[in-house]
Amino acid sequence: MKESDIVVIGGSAAGLTAAITARRHNPDKSILLVRKEERVLIPCGIPYIFGTVGKPENNLIPDAVLEKNSIELLVGEAKELKPDEKIVTIAGGETVKYEKLILATGSNPMVPPIPGIDKKNVFPAEKSVGNMQSLLDTLENTKDLVILGGGFIGVEFADECKKNRDINVTIVEMLPHCLLLAFEEELCVEAEKALIDRGINLVTGVKLEEVVGDERVRGVKLSDGRELKADVIIVGIGVRPNVGAAEAAGLKVDRGGIVVDTNMRTSDSNIFSCGDCTSKKSFFTGQPSGLNLASVAAMEARIAGANLFSTRRENRGTVGVFATAIGDLVLGVAGMTEKAAKDSGFDVTTGVAEATNRHPGGMPGMAMMKVKLVFNKKNGELIGGQVRGGPSTGELMNTISACIQKKMTADDIATFQLGTHPAVTASPIAYQLVNAAEMAIKNE
Amino acid sequence: MKESDIVVIGGSAAGLTAAITARRHNPDKSILLVRKEERVLIPCGIPYIFGTVGKPENNLIPDAVLEKNSIELLVGEAKELKPDEKIVTIAGGETVKYEKLILATGSNPMVPPIPGIDKKNVFPAEKSVGNMQSLLDTLENTKDLVILGGGFIGVEFADECKKNRDINVTIVEMLPHCLLLAFEEELCVEAEKALIDRGINLVTGVKLEEVVGDERVRGVKLSDGRELKADVIIVGIGVRPNVGAAEAAGLKVDRGGIVVDTNMRTSDSNIFSCGDCTSKKSFFTGQPSGLNLASVAAMEARIAGANLFSTRRENRGTVGVFATAIGDLVLGVAGMTEKAAKDSGFDVTTGVAEATNRHPGGMPGMAMMKVKLVFNKKNGELIGGQVRGGPSTGELMNTISACIQKKMTADDIATFQLGTHPAVTASPIAYQLVNAAEMAIKNE
Repeated sequence: MKESDIVVIGGSAAGLTAAITARRHNPDKSILLVRKEERVLIPCGIPYIFGTVGKPENNLIPDAVLEKNSIELLVGEAKELKPDEKIVTIAGGETVKYEKLILATGSNPMVPPIPGIDKKNVFPAEKSVGNMQSLLDTLENTKDLVILGGGFIGVEFADECKKNRDINVTIVEMLPHCLLLAFEEELCVEAEKALIDRGINLVTGVKLEEVVGDERVRGVKLSDGRELKADVIIVGIGVRPNVGAAEAAGLKVDRGGIVVDTNMRTSDSNIFSCGDCTSKKSFFTGQPSGLNLASVAAMEARIAGANLFSTRRENRGTVGVFATAIGDLVLGVAGMTEKAAKDSGFDVTTGVAEATNRHPGGMPGMAMMKVKLVFNKKNGELIGGQVRGGPSTGELMNTISACIQKKMTADDIATFQLGTHPAVTASPIAYQLVNAAEMAIKNE
Repeated sequence: MKESDIVVIGGSAAGLTAAITARRHNPDKSILLVRKEERVLIPCGIPYIFGTVGKPENNLIPDAVLEKNSIELLVGEAKELKPDEKIVTIAGGETVKYEKLILATGSNPMVPPIPGIDKKNVFPAEKSVGNMQSLLDTLENTKDLVILGGGFIGVEFADECKKNRDINVTIVEMLPHCLLLAFEEELCVEAEKALIDRGINLVTGVKLEEVVGDERVRGVKLSDGRELKADVIIVGIGVRPNVGAAEAAGLKVDRGGIVVDTNMRTSDSNIFSCGDCTSKKSFFTGQPSGLNLASVAAMEARIAGANLFSTRRENRGTVGVFATAIGDLVLGVAGMTEKAAKDSGFDVTTGVAEATNRHPGGMPGMAMMKVKLVFNKKNGELIGGQVRGGPSTGELMNTISACIQKKMTADDIATFQLGTHPAVTASPIAYQLVNAAEMAIKNE
């Protein structure tokens, strides 16, 4: 039997970050990372295999970081947990004894129970090198690609698969707009315009009812009666937490995944859980949060990995911060949209500001950048922000996230001490973040 | 005599922002902005006139924003203040009566008392269209340009003047490195390498002792005995607050400028002051701060403009957040460098993390991005951060500024809820901000 002070199951964003964090906080412990994949894809980079980086091998999490942090690697699937004996059984029969265990078993793509969904050339957005290589090969002879789901995964797959290919790409989305669970409707409309400009077909407000064909997919039937040709279908409608072994071992599990306390500890005091396999709560409402993101996984992992032997960090719930890009258009969000906030019962005030992201506007790389902020009227605190602009959107959304996490008010943000530079930001007079806060004060 | 509820003197970052803010908070008041310039240059954009945007007219603050906010404009120099009568006298004799007055009279470039400094073709970095047009014209026939001062103004002028010109550019800096008051020495060395790669000559650790020539400058003598040829000298060694009228009117003034309380109110309760003309204190030490930046000016203006008739905002002291760019190399800083912190008596721990700003590294726009964080050992709070990377540096420095302003600890930052995206940020595993915090914990 193998033994290790700390065992981590899972090698993606959560597992790897948990192992590295555990190492930083426990220089003298032995750490073993068990994962089922020989090679691990960077999860958020998966769509970019298809139009930008060229092949799955160019989108791998490098294993060098394991060696650098003295983390032993065991490739194999953890099949069974025995919490009482502190033992994990690996497929093939090998057993591993642990002192502390971190579960980071991730998630699997959801596949809707639609007739014909099991036909050949239907590809769920799986995080495996083999499946993604197979999709890449198949796209070479594809004329009609249907993407089921217009969330950010679907949108990014559509944009990437269209690049450098003579291919007809159609997104089928059940909601009235793409990206509607993530962004304000107004930004969704901008994103849709960008997709259409790039030659992508959108079918929204419509369900996929049947996959037709013989052995292989040949087309799809939609709820409005239309039929679309399809040689390949990519399914990107969300994920289901991978909790089989945890549940079988008697750990507490709910619909969102393995249940943990604010220290990321499961119902067994020696077992922690983080990432997609873990049930999440909203920072704003304390209610279940369905946001499965690599960045949330890594944040949870930095809590779990630091709390193994003594508690030092706490999870205050998921804020939800992420971005998507369609060509030069980048959309970023932190926290709640106005609609989501209202749907959750918040009374809100909002402010919007738009300006160039350079000053003067003639500086290279100029793009219009727009910020919308959403404040809780009751206590004045920022509960959401959206950014639309160029590449700097990614970092500005994190500035907004800081303001949300520290519960800043519109006056706090209006007097935010920001830095500016002609070549990289808006002017200090027009800076979108502070002016959106000012507009929210004015609107109230 | 003219009358206005609110009179603002000065039309640059501080004055304009103060007037707009006053409008937002006082929809029914009359607002008059008095400025001496017919046209106002974007202050931070001035160096970019010379290599990127082409002429002063392409670097103007647009006056449309005045009209949009119903702010009346009077072009003229405010010569005399009579606080007891609430009257301002404009050059030419016109008088203006105010209820509340905001002074945003800015600063003038410092000119060192060096023999020969008054010769023709010595250009202080002045914020006026005429002077900058004159410099632009003169550069057409310039072979040897000497820039006195290797701070960010000097460095940016050097880089811009070198572009598209067959010209020999030399920076003369008194300190051992360029940018040393702003950045860690290590980043200064990187910046110097970038300047040298771009064909700029650096002379550091040396003083300029004499400007030689006849009517016009012909060269400079340095403290190490060397002489350099020079057809033109640009002086960028800092600014002096423009406080003449305020001082003459009996307002309290110190070495840093017009003295204000935390609400930006001067020693006269109906007069506020903001921007370069105003004395500043450090966020960290409460001691005088010499940082004159447009972004600080705009922040102070948002406080002054909102506090005129009832106090709602407070200045907690200057954090100091800014960036500079040399080609694709962008350096950003928020708060204190390690050296400045130690010089101020802080016991510090630091952490450094470097990673690509895209994930995977093959994504377009990839650059290495490095973050260094400086924590106060006594209470664990973040007191400084530096970023070196591509254009997103500008926004990341503002995320760091948020962490400083909200006094976040290394553990707070290690569990920061960040958003990531392959096309615009580092990966969630390698995200530089959180990993620098983790390294600081490890180093402690």
